[in-house]
Amino acid sequence: VEFDGPCMKTEVPGPRSKILAQQLAIQSVVQVNFFCDYEESKGNYLVDVDGNRMLDVYTQIASIPIGYNHLALTKVMTDPKNMVSTLGMMPPEQFSEKLVNDLMAVAPKGFSRVQTMACGSCSNENAYKAIFIWYRVRMRGTPEPTPEEVRTSVINQVPGCPDLTLLSLMGGFHRRTLGCLATTHTKAIQKLDVPSFDWPIAPFPQLRYPLDQFERENAQEEARCQEEVEDLIVKWNQKGRHVAGVVIEPIQAEGGDNHASFDFYRKLRGITKKHGCAFQVDEVQTGGGSTGKFWAHEHWGLDDPADIVSFSKKMLTGGYYQKDSFQPDKLFRIFNTWLGDHTKNLFLTEVIKVIKTENLLDQAKRTVWSFVDKYPHLLSRARGIGTFCAIDVKDEDTHNNLLLKARNKGKTLSMDCGTQSIRFQSALVFTEHHAHLFLDILNDASLSS
Amino acid sequence: VEFDGPCMKTEVPGPRSKILAQQLAIQSVVQVNFFCDYEESKGNYLVDVDGNRMLDVYTQIASIPIGYNHLALTKVMTDPKNMVSTLGMMPPEQFSEKLVNDLMAVAPKGFSRVQTMACGSCSNENAYKAIFIWYRVRMRGTPEPTPEEVRTSVINQVPGCPDLTLLSLMGGFHRRTLGCLATTHTKAIQKLDVPSFDWPIAPFPQLRYPLDQFERENAQEEARCQEEVEDLIVKWNQKGRHVAGVVIEPIQAEGGDNHASFDFYRKLRGITKKHGCAFQVDEVQTGGGSTGKFWAHEHWGLDDPADIVSFSKKMLTGGYYQKDSFQPDKLFRIFNTWLGDHTKNLFLTEVIKVIKTENLLDQAKRTVWSFVDKYPHLLSRARGIGTFCAIDVKDEDTHNNLLLKARNKGKTLSMDCGTQSIRFQSALVFTEHHAHLFLDILNDASLSS
Ligand code: FES
Repeated sequence: VEFDGPCMKTEVPGPRSKILAQQLAIQSVVQVNFFCDYEESKGNYLVDVDGNRMLDVYTQIASIPIGYNHLALTKVMTDPKNMVSTLGMMPPEQFSEKLVNDLMAVAPKGFSRVQTMACGSCSNENAYKAIFIWYRVRMRGTPEPTPEEVRTSVINQVPGCPDLTLLSLMGGFHRRTLGCLATTHTKAIQKLDVPSFDWPIAPFPQLRYPLDQFERENAQEEARCQEEVEDLIVKWNQKGRHVAGVVIEPIQAEGGDNHASFDFYRKLRGITKKHGCAFQVDEVQTGGGSTGKFWAHEHWGLDDPADIVSFSKKMLTGGYYQKDSFQPDKLFRIFNTWLGDHTKNLFLTEVIKVIKTENLLDQAKRTVWSFVDKYPHLLSRARGIGTFCAIDVKDEDTHNNLLLKARNKGKTLSMDCGTQSIRFQSALVFTEHHAHLFLDILNDASLSS
Repeated sequence: VEFDGPCMKTEVPGPRSKILAQQLAIQSVVQVNFFCDYEESKGNYLVDVDGNRMLDVYTQIASIPIGYNHLALTKVMTDPKNMVSTLGMMPPEQFSEKLVNDLMAVAPKGFSRVQTMACGSCSNENAYKAIFIWYRVRMRGTPEPTPEEVRTSVINQVPGCPDLTLLSLMGGFHRRTLGCLATTHTKAIQKLDVPSFDWPIAPFPQLRYPLDQFERENAQEEARCQEEVEDLIVKWNQKGRHVAGVVIEPIQAEGGDNHASFDFYRKLRGITKKHGCAFQVDEVQTGGGSTGKFWAHEHWGLDDPADIVSFSKKMLTGGYYQKDSFQPDKLFRIFNTWLGDHTKNLFLTEVIKVIKTENLLDQAKRTVWSFVDKYPHLLSRARGIGTFCAIDVKDEDTHNNLLLKARNKGKTLSMDCGTQSIRFQSALVFTEHHAHLFLDILNDASLSS
C-alpha cells in the first residue's frame, strides 16, 4: 500500500541533506539536491533523509519505471540466485532465454535483433559504430577491408577510420561521451572546451502553441526543417563527408520537451531511405511506456520506422534494437566487458510483467495534464503524450520560484529543462489521483507567487 | 570451502553451452565461449552449464576480484536494504560516507578527490573531458567562456569546441566508445570503419627478453620512445593542436601484456610536467591489487605520479581520482544519470575489507610464474608483476592448441591478447596451490603438443 499523500517536515534540502552534501565534497556533486531514504520511499512517493515525503513526478530522470520499492523488484533483489555477474564473454545460463523473451517481447515493429549495453551512453556510442560500419561496408561493397584500411585504422587515419558523419538536430540530447556529445546540442556548458567532430546539424521545428491556432505556421516550420535535413545530406555527401545516419529523439527531452508532429518524423524517415542513410531513433528517455505506447515512435504508425532504436533508463538495461543488416560481420567489433548488467535484466522481466498485468500503458494514456488554462498568467505551451509532459512558465524567476514552492509543499523538484520548462516524467504507476494531488500543490504554489 | 581441483565432464563448449549460444543468436555473441553456472562457481573455480569445473586464471577479464561467490558479497546481495538506485541527482544516505571511506581509503598518493562512473568507458571518456576543460581553462586564463565560445560550442565548432588533442601510445587500449577509441591502438578490427580524431600517437618500447640479457638495448629503446613523446608534444603544440594530456596504461594489457621499466614511466611523468600536459594513468585493468600493490603505478615510487587515475573492473564501480585542479568549476560539466551503481559500491566495501583482512596483496606478490625455463621450445618472454602475468608462445598455432588443450584439461580459456600471448589475471584469492595446479595442467597440455 502506498502513502496517502505528501508530508513535509523541513525545507528541502533539510539539515541532514545539507550535512551529507558537505561530506560528499570530494566528488563533483554540487548538482545533488537532497539525499534520499530509499528504504522509506514507496510507489510515487520519495522520502528524503530528513523524513520529507514528496510526490515524485520526475522519478530520478525517469529511471524508476514502476515506482519505488515495488514488491516485484525487491523480490528479485533479495533472491540469492541473482548474483551480479559480468555478461559478454561468459553469460549465465538464463541470460539468453531472458533476452529473447523479455526484450524481444517488447521489440518495436520490424526488429529481430537486440544488443544489450550498460547505459544510454554506451548504447548510443555503439549504435553509432554499428551505423558507420554498416555504411562503410556498403560503400566498399564488401566487409573485407583493404590492407591499407587495416593499417590506417590503428592510427586513426583515413581510409581505415573514414571521414563519415552523423546528422543530428539542434536541441537534441544523445548523452555526453565524446561520440554522443558530437550529436548533442542543448546547453553550452555540456560541450564547452571539449573537442568534437565537425558533423552536420539541422534545425528542429519550433512549434507555436496552442497547436490548433497555428496549424499553417507550424506546417511551414516543419517543412523548412525537413528541407534543411535533405539539403545537408546532399551537400555533405557531395563534399565526400558522407552522412552515414540521422539520429533523433521522438521527443527532445533535455532540449526542453520539444515536440514535432508525427508526420514530421515520418517525412524524416522517408528522407533517410531516399539517401541511403541509417535512421536511429534514440528512445533512451521516451522508451518504456511513458507516452502511453511502449515506444514513442509507435505513434508514427510506420511499418519500417527505423534502422536502430536505442534505449536505457526505464528499460533498466541499456541497448539497442537493430535491423539484421546492422549486425557486424566480424567478432568483437561491438563489445564491452559489461554487456549490460545481469541484475538489471532480471528487473526488466518484472517491470514488463507489471506493466502488462497492471495495464499501466492504458493508465499512462489517461493521465493528461490540462491545467494550463487555469493559470494563463503563469503557464503556457502545455505539450505531451501520456505521462511525458511539460509546460512553460512565463520567465526564469517564476519558474524557479514555482518549483521551490512546490517542492516545499511536497512535490519533488523536476530537473529544469531549458530555463522555462517544467517537465513531468512520472512513474507508470502515477494515476489520476496523483495528478489531482499534484495540481493542488501547484495551485497553492502559484497562488502564493 | 573451495573445490579441491578442476573436474571436466565434456569438451568445452559442451552441448548445453552450444544450444544456449544458438538461442542467443539475436545478439552479437559469436564471442561467447561457453555459459557459466554462477550458483555452482566458487573461489578460483568457474563451473559451466555442462558441469565442467575449471580453474580460472583470467576471471572474466579480471572483474571478479576475490573469486566467485565470496560469502562477503553474497551477504551484501541478499540484504533487502541494498535496493539498486540511481545515484547522481539524489544519492542514498550511505553513499557519501561510503565513497569517502572506501574509495579514499585506497586512493593513490596525492589524490584527494574521486569521481565515480559506471564502467571503464565512461571513466575514461569523462577523465578526458576533465583534462580538456582543465587545459582550456588554463589557456584562457579564466573559467569564464567568451560569448563566441558559448555560441560555437553548441554547434561543435572552434573556439567553443577547441582543437585540443590527447597523446596515446601504440598498443594502448583505453576502451571502445568514440573518444576512448581515438586513444586505443591495438587491433584494426576494433577501429575499422569508425571515424576518429587525428591525435598524436607515440611508440611503446618493445623490450627484449630475458631482460637481464638485453639491458643496454632496452634502455636505448625506452630512450627512443621518450624522445618521440616529447617531440610529438612540441610539434603538435607548435601547429596549434595542443596536447592537453598523455594517457597511458602501467602495463599494456590488451596490447599483449607489454611492460616497460618503472623508470620509463617516471620519465614520461617528467615530460608531461615540463610541457604542461596532464598525465592520466589508466588503471582499469591494473588497479585493485593484481600487481601486488593496490595501484600498479605505485611501483614507480613517485610522490606525484599522475593528475588523473581511472579505474573500473576489479574496483567494481568505475571512476577516476583527480587532482583538485581538475575539478570542473561549473555544475553539470561532468555528469551522467548513473554516477556508478549503488550495489557495486556496496560490493566494493566488502572487497576492500577482504583484501585487507585476508592479506591478499601480499599473497598476490608471492604468486610468481617461473615455468618458462621448463619449456624453452614452446614459451618465451615471461613477464609480469604479482598475478598480472603473461608468456609468449612460439607461434599462433601452438598458442591456440595449448589453450584448447589446457581448457579441456580444466583450465578456463584466457582471452588471447596479441596472437601469441597467454595472459593470467587471476583473482586475488589465487594461491601457490592454484599456481601449481595450473602448471600441472599446462605441463600435460604442452607434453601432448
Ligand atoms: S558508458 Fe555505459 S556504463 Fe559506462
